Amino acid sequence: MFHFLSRLLPKEEINKLMKSVMSNEVYSYNGTSEYFNELKNLPKFSSVTNFLDHWTGEVDVHLLDLKDEASTKKVSTHEAMSYYDQGMGLLFNDLNLFDEKMQDDLNRLCGDFGVSRATMSRNLVYATPKGGGTATHFDQNINLVLQLKGRKSWWLKENECVRNPLTRHTLGTISDPELSSYIDSPFPDSIKYDEEYELSEGSLLFVPKGHWHKTHAHDDSLALNFTFSLPSWVDILSMALRARLIQSEYWRDSVIGLNSETSAKEKLSLFETLLDSLKSDIQSWDAGEILSFIEFSEGEESNE
Amino acid sequence: MFHFLSRLLPKEEINKLMKSVMSNEVYSYNGTSEYFNELKNLPKFSSVTNFLDHWTGEVDVHLLDLKDEASTKKVSTHEAMSYYDQGMGLLFNDLNLFDEKMQDDLNRLCGDFGVSRATMSRNLVYATPKGGGTATHFDQNINLVLQLKGRKSWWLKENECVRNPLTRHTLGTISDPELSSYIDSPFPDSIKYDEEYELSEGSLLFVPKGHWHKTHAHDDSLALNFTFSLPSWVDILSMALRARLIQSEYWRDSVIGLNSETSAKEKLSLFETLLDSLKSDIQSWDAGEILSFIEFSEGEESNE
Repeated sequence: MFHFLSRLLPKEEINKLMKSVMSNEVYSYNGTSEYFNELKNLPKFSSVTNFLDHWTGEVDVHLLDLKDEASTKKVSTHEAMSYYDQGMGLLFNDLNLFDEKMQDDLNRLCGDFGVSRATMSRNLVYATPKGGGTATHFDQNINLVLQLKGRKSWWLKENECVRNPLTRHTLGTISDPELSSYIDSPFPDSIKYDEEYELSEGSLLFVPKGHWHKTHAHDDSLALNFTFSLPSWVDILSMALRARLIQSEYWRDSVIGLNSETSAKEKLSLFETLLDSLKSDIQSWDAGEILSFIEFSEGEESNE
Repeated sequence: MFHFLSRLLPKEEINKLMKSVMSNEVYSYNGTSEYFNELKNLPKFSSVTNFLDHWTGEVDVHLLDLKDEASTKKVSTHEAMSYYDQGMGLLFNDLNLFDEKMQDDLNRLCGDFGVSRATMSRNLVYATPKGGGTATHFDQNINLVLQLKGRKSWWLKENECVRNPLTRHTLGTISDPELSSYIDSPFPDSIKYDEEYELSEGSLLFVPKGHWHKTHAHDDSLALNFTFSLPSWVDILSMALRARLIQSEYWRDSVIGLNSETSAKEKLSLFETLLDSLKSDIQSWDAGEILSFIEFSEGEESNE
């Protein structure tokens, strides 16, 4: 029934993980797995240097000012090691696009989690030098983290200021205006963490969306992330709405001429007519049909 | 009243251009202007070589297979000239971002046209070698073209297959699935143009959105485009809808767990409740308020 998780966790643990994923709660497992044993024997995962030798894409360096993805720089594999040696973390994006087996496993995990077809899923590899780590932030996506090399600690805390954020945010930085528009209370100056999760080689951690977290590498560390940017219900509705409205050339018409009073009035009156027709049309919209349209209609898969 | 067009055209011509822009029709002017005289004296616009010397960004090369933006490659300024010498057109993106005066003039033209704040406006420079040009295509944006160096012919034809397309399309290529979903009839194999517009130095051409066009350079040619990607009414509605719905944590909630029947039913039932609340809420939405929200609300300007 579970096509990838069965290689990652014992049966009873799979159910615990699934419960955590569905309720957006932290899950951790300190053990080893068939999947981890496969990966650890691959030369590229044996050290940061070896991974760099296998990598052909660009590398994101997490600069030291924020120790965070909010402050990154793209460098070549050639340059990456000197940043790493200076204590900076490296991020390798979209490993799945370079590795067919990885992509297959990622697809299987998509199936196991039952994510929407509108999900953007990918594999990320984080190389963190001993003593390095990320500053407190939260992500809008969910991550399943497999610790490959070295030990790394994670501190996580539920977010009391906002549920289901649609944007990542680093503590102490200026917040995105859209994010600010819906937070329940201002972000604090610091986070008091209650729990530390120390991951060793083979450990697994589920990082729920929106949870504050920071990390610290006790050794030179390599970790593999399965990252899922899940669509929200707003996204599902917007996709369906767009697909429907663009069938009309009037909805597709451009907004221009707002500076002349005559023309602006004309444009506004057109928009009123369109909005009125939508107010009536939307009454017959069916949630099941919309969801089916997104999940099962023909056309390009967005999940890659 | 017109802050930029007054430097570009005589008074009586401005009204003709404005009428064409508002009704999405071709406009051309073969004359000279205060603005053109300013530009032609700038060293960078005196030749392709000089422009390349002044340019610090990347250059898009239009490869010979399609002679079109659908087939491009990014190269350095250093490499660009050899592609040009082999007959390939060069595109320099976003000149306004490198030139403050250009950005000011672009902003003035935005005001003269009365475009929405959600418009993406920019300056493009096209360098086309003698004998070169673009293959037949249409754009979803509108372009005001000022011919700076050499002579270049344009052929334009109204699009009988689709009005107000939201995606560009090159004749003979596979069409974007979204575009295919709303065309009135299949695209033809070839376009029979009725009219040729030969631009000489200082000539101006308004290229309406969606009109088929192709070009041919009679000499080495440099042209400056004022390009406006105008939002559609669908875009305006979607932005307002999103801003409103994301205030609810339930609308922001992620779509996951669609593979288990119990969980999928629960999710669908939540979506039904959300959709029902929208069906009722939308009845009080006001077209004028939505437009004001997009055009006059605080927050970041998207127009840059």
